[in-house]
Amino acid sequence: MQFRPDLDSTSETPLYRQLGGYVQRLIQNGELQPGDRLPPTRELAGQLGLNRTTVSAAYEWLESEGLILGAVGRGSFVLGKTPSAESAIPEPQSIDWSTRLTPSMFASGISSPGATALGSVIDFSSSRPSEQLFPLEAFRESCAEVLAHPRLQSLLQLGSPLGHGPLRSWLLTRAKQQGFAGVDDDILITNGCQQAVDILRRALTQTGTKVAIEEPVYPGLRNLFLDSGAELIGVPVTSQGMDLRSLHKALDAGAKVVVVTPSFQNPTGATMPASARAALVSMTRNAGAIAIENDIYSDLVYQGAKLPKLKSFDANVIQLGSFSKIAFPGIRVGWIIAPKQVIRRAAELKQLTDLHTDQLSQAFLLQFAESGRLERHEATVIAAGREKLRAVEQACQQHLDTCRFTVPDGGMNMWLTLPDGLDAGALRGLARQAGVDYLPGRYFSVSRSLDSGLRLSFAGLTAAEIRRGIEILGEVIRNAATSRDDASRPTLAFV
Amino acid sequence: MQFRPDLDSTSETPLYRQLGGYVQRLIQNGELQPGDRLPPTRELAGQLGLNRTTVSAAYEWLESEGLILGAVGRGSFVLGKTPSAESAIPEPQSIDWSTRLTPSMFASGISSPGATALGSVIDFSSSRPSEQLFPLEAFRESCAEVLAHPRLQSLLQLGSPLGHGPLRSWLLTRAKQQGFAGVDDDILITNGCQQAVDILRRALTQTGTKVAIEEPVYPGLRNLFLDSGAELIGVPVTSQGMDLRSLHKALDAGAKVVVVTPSFQNPTGATMPASARAALVSMTRNAGAIAIENDIYSDLVYQGAKLPKLKSFDANVIQLGSFSKIAFPGIRVGWIIAPKQVIRRAAELKQLTDLHTDQLSQAFLLQFAESGRLERHEATVIAAGREKLRAVEQACQQHLDTCRFTVPDGGMNMWLTLPDGLDAGALRGLARQAGVDYLPGRYFSVSRSLDSGLRLSFAGLTAAEIRRGIEILGEVIRNAATSRDDASRPTLAFV
Repeated sequence: MQFRPDLDSTSETPLYRQLGGYVQRLIQNGELQPGDRLPPTRELAGQLGLNRTTVSAAYEWLESEGLILGAVGRGSFVLGKTPSAESAIPEPQSIDWSTRLTPSMFASGISSPGATALGSVIDFSSSRPSEQLFPLEAFRESCAEVLAHPRLQSLLQLGSPLGHGPLRSWLLTRAKQQGFAGVDDDILITNGCQQAVDILRRALTQTGTKVAIEEPVYPGLRNLFLDSGAELIGVPVTSQGMDLRSLHKALDAGAKVVVVTPSFQNPTGATMPASARAALVSMTRNAGAIAIENDIYSDLVYQGAKLPKLKSFDANVIQLGSFSKIAFPGIRVGWIIAPKQVIRRAAELKQLTDLHTDQLSQAFLLQFAESGRLERHEATVIAAGREKLRAVEQACQQHLDTCRFTVPDGGMNMWLTLPDGLDAGALRGLARQAGVDYLPGRYFSVSRSLDSGLRLSFAGLTAAEIRRGIEILGEVIRNAATSRDDASRPTLAFV
Repeated sequence: MQFRPDLDSTSETPLYRQLGGYVQRLIQNGELQPGDRLPPTRELAGQLGLNRTTVSAAYEWLESEGLILGAVGRGSFVLGKTPSAESAIPEPQSIDWSTRLTPSMFASGISSPGATALGSVIDFSSSRPSEQLFPLEAFRESCAEVLAHPRLQSLLQLGSPLGHGPLRSWLLTRAKQQGFAGVDDDILITNGCQQAVDILRRALTQTGTKVAIEEPVYPGLRNLFLDSGAELIGVPVTSQGMDLRSLHKALDAGAKVVVVTPSFQNPTGATMPASARAALVSMTRNAGAIAIENDIYSDLVYQGAKLPKLKSFDANVIQLGSFSKIAFPGIRVGWIIAPKQVIRRAAELKQLTDLHTDQLSQAFLLQFAESGRLERHEATVIAAGREKLRAVEQACQQHLDTCRFTVPDGGMNMWLTLPDGLDAGALRGLARQAGVDYLPGRYFSVSRSLDSGLRLSFAGLTAAEIRRGIEILGEVIRNAATSRDDASRPTLAFV
């Protein structure tokens, strides 16, 4: 703006005060806004035909009044009237946030847990435990015991990035007793398994690092690595888990990190036999790569025996665990068991990301586990899981005879391949109208089209819901297949 | 390895079975390990003078026995004996983890909260509330109310990335009532303020983005941005907070994000006057940059009035809050209040990083707040803070007359500049020996040497401890200054 002060050299008020008063009025009536720059003294002096010292004196006076900052030199600018907190909130100026925010590195197809509100639809879309099975009284007792203890005071104080000491000891001792952790291992507590992966990708990958992951894969895992600029190599999953021949190729192609869920993989439910586990570990080690074992489902065995963990074959394997699948997903406690050097770097990153995991929740879960309540709850979950699995098996055989599937021995999820020519994404709308929902294969894609596949998550449903849901799904699939074969009805086209 | 089978072409056992049996024995006695590659059929056939189909048949037999994978083509390799989970854990092979882990982007001088075990030392080194003030009974009552409620079941189930709905409403309504949040704002719950910064740096910065932060600054904030490859510009802090003239230069130099703690900045305790706040917001907006207001200390006013928040001047300001400073740092609950587009991207990143914040803790803190207990606790903390501040003020005037300092009106921290020539890092050893500890200035450095400064964190101590601690520190400083001036005692050199 142009400064046009009405200066009177004959006045008793000195010129610098007249100029200062003029600027003061500009500030007070809002013509000059906080943050606005004032013209340099030399420039304004020239413009107004004043001596530069007069302008400097005016600026010094304004600064002494707290109205501007930087009386001398460049960069004098307006501080403005002291504003009050009661003043109205200004309208947001037009910031174009789309240009200011980092872009998503992935399609917007993240499943948003808890966001579905489908009314009476039987929902196979969410991989989560059944809340009807939550042992509320046993959990309340555990909490009450922790809260009554004098240790509560220190639980509420700032803690260690590594996690709550007693919980770490309990988990690490259990891992050693079970034979898959050794003297060189340590443990870091995280906010569930998702954060464990987030921390490890920061510890192990940089832009361009090649990472082998299963395909289909849990999107939260894929997206984390995509977000860090890693180059993903999708390794197909068969009914025997990660296909080793394809993994071999991925390692030949330079994969430096292998992320694998050997038991009841999400979304397929596939489980690797013991011999394949040994081979995967050897291949990975021989290629100079690091294996991350996502071990969050391995306790959910409804039939058959538990299989040896990858980490039992090689102490260098980094293992992820969590209470979320066996107990309560709303309480975010997971962990990483790995060689000490890995845990040291991971703890540094954990401190950086959120200081440490909630201490009260760690103490609640420890008490729940140490008191034997977790084990009793696990037995309940497994018994219920067995019943659900029987329902899945029977209903699939009865209603989904045109599909391909392998019923798993545990976990929460199963993969279904539709008859040729049907698209699980296109079919979903019809399924929802008919009263059943699932997640289409494309949610779990790395680089392949998985349009003919879909995930059925059965752990959150009752056996009766499972039977009814699969029956409905079977009808939807049969109708769609008939429509596809029926050239006279071109309105239903599944491409 | 060389294959040297003892083949007998006159035997009744066919050659392919003889070769297969030979390889089987190599696997069983461990000469071939899981993951080892077998030679290509063509190569082995040539080597042994066999027909290639004989070798292929041997490999096919081995695959049918489950001993190898990939009978045909390239990449046949050993699966090996089915291993048992009871087998001994193999010794970790020598992975050189130092070459496999991403390097720290910062010196190892992170203060590790809770890691100090100094016995009887009066500890000014940790910025945390006093656990003696924790209202354990009031907190226990809040927890018991939440646990008794039937809603417990849904709290234990998977939740929304945005946070616990009732807590979000309560906080956002409060912010609107206090006049610094508007209709275009939304809220995301995080694991304390540290995670809020971690999420925002992912949302707003990329490698090379210029970020203006205070200097001295809380190291956890500096390190997060360093880790993401941002280019940091340290803006000096005066007793009036971030120096606006320097900020102006930083914006001229291209800073696109400004992170500022206007009230009781950590580590200096400095607070910006209202007019400077308005100017900072305008300058930032005019430069097309984004301001992040770290607002975690502003409720801890022990004397004087609360000042308007940056966000009350401009709805585009992104504000961070937390319960950690006023209530319990061991429970990790903080939040971001920002325009809806920012919260949408931040929620996506939150889901990626750990799905959502612990739900039980969110519900406990909401109950603690909603029931009025938080307000009563806040009054206690502020009354105690006033007493601590008096102790700081009196003791500093009495014992630290050779130092420069500004006693703040609230918060947890104060900055002390030592007499010329004294180095706070070098002095620390003597201070600890004398029974008092603090953090030297270099912990808080961005690009300047801050060796003559140190942080005194007083909130966790009693008034008596503060008086005694500052008295000891005064003696240590006087002795060191005397030694420095005394050329006859060259053993104590502070450079």
